[in-house]
Amino acid sequence: MTKMLKGIAASDGIAAAKAYMLVQPDLSFSETSISDPEAEIKRLDDAVAASKSELEAIKQKATQNLGAEEAEVFEAHLTILADPEMIGQIENQIKNEKVNAEAALKSVTDMFISMFEGMTDNAYMQERAGDIRDVTKRVMSHLLGVTLPNPALIDEEVVIVAHDLTPSDTAQLDRNFVKGFITDIGGRTSHSAIMSRTLEIPAVVGSGSATTEIKEGDMVIIDGIAGDAVIDPTADQLAEYEQKAADFKAQKAEWQQLKDARSVSKDGKQVILGANIGTPKDVTGAVDNGAEAVGLFRSEFLYMDASELPTEEEQFKAYKEAVEGMDGKQVVVRTMDIGGDKDLPYLPLPEEENPFLGYRAIRISLDRQDIFRTQLRALLRASHYGRLAIMFPMIATVKEFKDAKAIFEEEKAKLVKEGIPVSDDIEVGMMMEIPAAAMIADKLAKYADFFSIGTNDLIQYSMAADRGNERVSYLYQPYNPSILRLIKNIIDASHKEGKWTGMCGEMAGDQVAVPLLLGLGLDEFSMSATSILKTRSLLKKLDSVKMQELAQKAVEDCETTEEVEALVAEYTK
Amino acid sequence: MTKMLKGIAASDGIAAAKAYMLVQPDLSFSETSISDPEAEIKRLDDAVAASKSELEAIKQKATQNLGAEEAEVFEAHLTILADPEMIGQIENQIKNEKVNAEAALKSVTDMFISMFEGMTDNAYMQERAGDIRDVTKRVMSHLLGVTLPNPALIDEEVVIVAHDLTPSDTAQLDRNFVKGFITDIGGRTSHSAIMSRTLEIPAVVGSGSATTEIKEGDMVIIDGIAGDAVIDPTADQLAEYEQKAADFKAQKAEWQQLKDARSVSKDGKQVILGANIGTPKDVTGAVDNGAEAVGLFRSEFLYMDASELPTEEEQFKAYKEAVEGMDGKQVVVRTMDIGGDKDLPYLPLPEEENPFLGYRAIRISLDRQDIFRTQLRALLRASHYGRLAIMFPMIATVKEFKDAKAIFEEEKAKLVKEGIPVSDDIEVGMMMEIPAAAMIADKLAKYADFFSIGTNDLIQYSMAADRGNERVSYLYQPYNPSILRLIKNIIDASHKEGKWTGMCGEMAGDQVAVPLLLGLGLDEFSMSATSILKTRSLLKKLDSVKMQELAQKAVEDCETTEEVEALVAEYTK
Repeated sequence: MTKMLKGIAASDGIAAAKAYMLVQPDLSFSETSISDPEAEIKRLDDAVAASKSELEAIKQKATQNLGAEEAEVFEAHLTILADPEMIGQIENQIKNEKVNAEAALKSVTDMFISMFEGMTDNAYMQERAGDIRDVTKRVMSHLLGVTLPNPALIDEEVVIVAHDLTPSDTAQLDRNFVKGFITDIGGRTSHSAIMSRTLEIPAVVGSGSATTEIKEGDMVIIDGIAGDAVIDPTADQLAEYEQKAADFKAQKAEWQQLKDARSVSKDGKQVILGANIGTPKDVTGAVDNGAEAVGLFRSEFLYMDASELPTEEEQFKAYKEAVEGMDGKQVVVRTMDIGGDKDLPYLPLPEEENPFLGYRAIRISLDRQDIFRTQLRALLRASHYGRLAIMFPMIATVKEFKDAKAIFEEEKAKLVKEGIPVSDDIEVGMMMEIPAAAMIADKLAKYADFFSIGTNDLIQYSMAADRGNERVSYLYQPYNPSILRLIKNIIDASHKEGKWTGMCGEMAGDQVAVPLLLGLGLDEFSMSATSILKTRSLLKKLDSVKMQELAQKAVEDCETTEEVEALVAEYTK
Repeated sequence: MTKMLKGIAASDGIAAAKAYMLVQPDLSFSETSISDPEAEIKRLDDAVAASKSELEAIKQKATQNLGAEEAEVFEAHLTILADPEMIGQIENQIKNEKVNAEAALKSVTDMFISMFEGMTDNAYMQERAGDIRDVTKRVMSHLLGVTLPNPALIDEEVVIVAHDLTPSDTAQLDRNFVKGFITDIGGRTSHSAIMSRTLEIPAVVGSGSATTEIKEGDMVIIDGIAGDAVIDPTADQLAEYEQKAADFKAQKAEWQQLKDARSVSKDGKQVILGANIGTPKDVTGAVDNGAEAVGLFRSEFLYMDASELPTEEEQFKAYKEAVEGMDGKQVVVRTMDIGGDKDLPYLPLPEEENPFLGYRAIRISLDRQDIFRTQLRALLRASHYGRLAIMFPMIATVKEFKDAKAIFEEEKAKLVKEGIPVSDDIEVGMMMEIPAAAMIADKLAKYADFFSIGTNDLIQYSMAADRGNERVSYLYQPYNPSILRLIKNIIDASHKEGKWTGMCGEMAGDQVAVPLLLGLGLDEFSMSATSILKTRSLLKKLDSVKMQELAQKAVEDCETTEEVEALVAEYTK
């Protein structure tokens, strides 16, 4: 029967295909006494053998479709199953304690997992614990006769239905077959949502009940524009959505006309629309989507996709490739922003009660100056090949900025002395993502060449609400007057010192926020490349003077986010 | 040899006594193969027996000195040792796998711990996991022939030396024998520090190396005024500190003169000095120390010291006792502030990545209205017996305050309809501890009757730095201009609407902050009762007009916390 599901629009576009349930089956079991240990050991061995051949198939498929790197994890799983010690212990437990294979499997693997997890200062061992957990699930599924989802094996067009999508789930997906996503949880800034935009796959997140309402093989329409899904659509509905998909395609073609246009409001106020990128490879997508700058180059990929600290040379090449690719347009590189929810396997960080309030980003860089100086040298060398700017993440105080800047100046002087060519006009700015920094933006503007507002963090700290925590996600309110006032304070302070302010959080490409940000005087909007043309088209319809009036009213008169939203609707209708 | 240690002054006073090392011994061991399982099982049984008689002794002592409730945990430990299943499995493992008792103990108890910890929705089982961990340590110490510290057994005057003090450590300490504390880590707002002030025990925290520099039995002087410690003092030093202790006593006597005085600056500006209390029993201490109000009554104790949700009647009695004890002076009760680092065993909260940015305080109350309404009814009924005010913790938006206030009004109307006497002028205010709320203080001041600034949280959210995390503790900067600007914004907004602002964080009793806060126009300073008279004495020396000038300069001109500190020193010398 046809059913509608309402969620959050996470990535534009329309898709219709059969549902693929990326859902963990129930792996619970009862511990029982057994009388024939040999037969039970045979059950175990059969389950292990079935798991092995399944993993071989997945590994082969993953290597083909996704590349050798993504397939490595399955090799690790196979190695675990080939280890005689663990399997031997499970067999012993079946023999000695006369328990069923499920109980012995769980008991022994739990022991290994807690042992490996206990080695908290060894990231490698911690990862092994995760691998054992995954392998145990697979063997257990064969013992219980249930099927684990194997997304790497998908070979027809599907819409993925999941409670949530983890980075490791998404790494296994083949873009040629995955036409859309729908998840139970998550918001516009969740990992699944950001990824769906990067991959340009229509997606609806936070539907609440997709995994219970939809069954494997159901036909599902995903409307990533409205944030709806239709299960088992009628022929009429299918036709209607085909029309909607065609309209969307036409609109995209229209936007494409703006690729080489300037970004100006109806009354001629010009701003810069930039792209957020993760690797130098993303430069092509940025240019194709009409980016006038890279407003945020996350340098983390250099650290996270590696098995040891990247060398100065490796980093230099990546930064050089990015600035050359942008061909004279500015590339703002954010220095290493690890910690929080981003760990490096080879640089174990302390376990923290509240990692988002912990040792991360510039706090690590100022502490581990060896790592920081290597990065700065690579950036300085790359600056010779294009228009490179640098910004420091998580600056909270004037002292931190001055300390970081002083290290930059030291490394610059050293390179100059070594005779290595270095640009003489590198802008050095900072992320504005900590409320304390926003409060003293006037003081920081004396030292920083520019600000870049990181709204995801700024909002979560200002509201004291983890953006990844469903229970408090109602407090993620980009349009709350409190947030708009902080943003205004930052922009005004920068202008007073003749500096500029950009924004590189999700909010910069949000169609409700853009009118407000234009009115507040934001100079540069940096977003997912795929949102740039849509935003350029929106800007053309906005009058900057009227938007100033809108912003002033929102900041001065409104009390709640709902009032601001209503005001934006009134001013842009 | 005499040595000096420098730390952070956490609690005023001087103490000299022998060191008691509250330090965990090294419990590491190697797994070895054994040839005589019977002998090894005997070793295990001996260690278990020794652990049992030790626990019996501790339990008896704890019951005597601390009460039956504090002794319960040791009863739980004895029950674990009496359980034949776990011990039996350890013995089996020694027999079957021919490993030493240490290895078998660790392997089996790890399994139990991970099993119990895996039951994440069962708080009781989670606690059992902790108990097994503790018992395992004790048995292991006997196997290895090392001694665990048993603070409950202390029966002579000592100075406690520890890496850090946990709530469970301190619950075991007998105040009659513990003369001072010194710890390696922690700051002025750490648990150990707050507790030492409540107990009026001289303390130095964050010394860095107390546990390595001091040995069991060393004579140690703790100077909780300067934040110093002297190890193995010379006779001259002992005499010098005796003099200092006498001076401190004399100064305290002088302060005592101010017990019934008003709190006024040199030029006659009056403020209110209140006490922060945890239970109605603390009212006596507040009154004895000259409190003019209770600026913060933490209602959590009602929830945390219980085995189930407290009834309306239980709560009513506690609130009534507090308001009656204060005899017409105002008592501000903060509604339930659990979550974050405060859990309730009978109300399992979700595990969160960043609990400080999670489901806590008013966020729980608005969600679990059954709990919230019971508390509000109890408060409303108690309001008839004295001057009671209510405030909501962790308000981030206008909507949250209005929602909470509406529930309050509903319950009030119900009680009035039921004919139950309720005060007609209960002030309903809010904590100011979230940056977003501080940014829209002008809007909130239209609805809230007063603000109470919670500096511990306000600083940690504004700086995005967990105050309990050593690696980022340098960012806990109460005098940073960013924090002072937020405070100014809050105070000014309240005054503009004819409302008042108090402060109930640690900062309110901080002798560097008081001049700034007086200058910023703070109306009520609420602090540990033992800091009140010292602060009243300080206020008498300050000129409020000059402090206004100081505050204005700090807010407008200073860039860093160091500059503000220098300015305060200049203005108060």
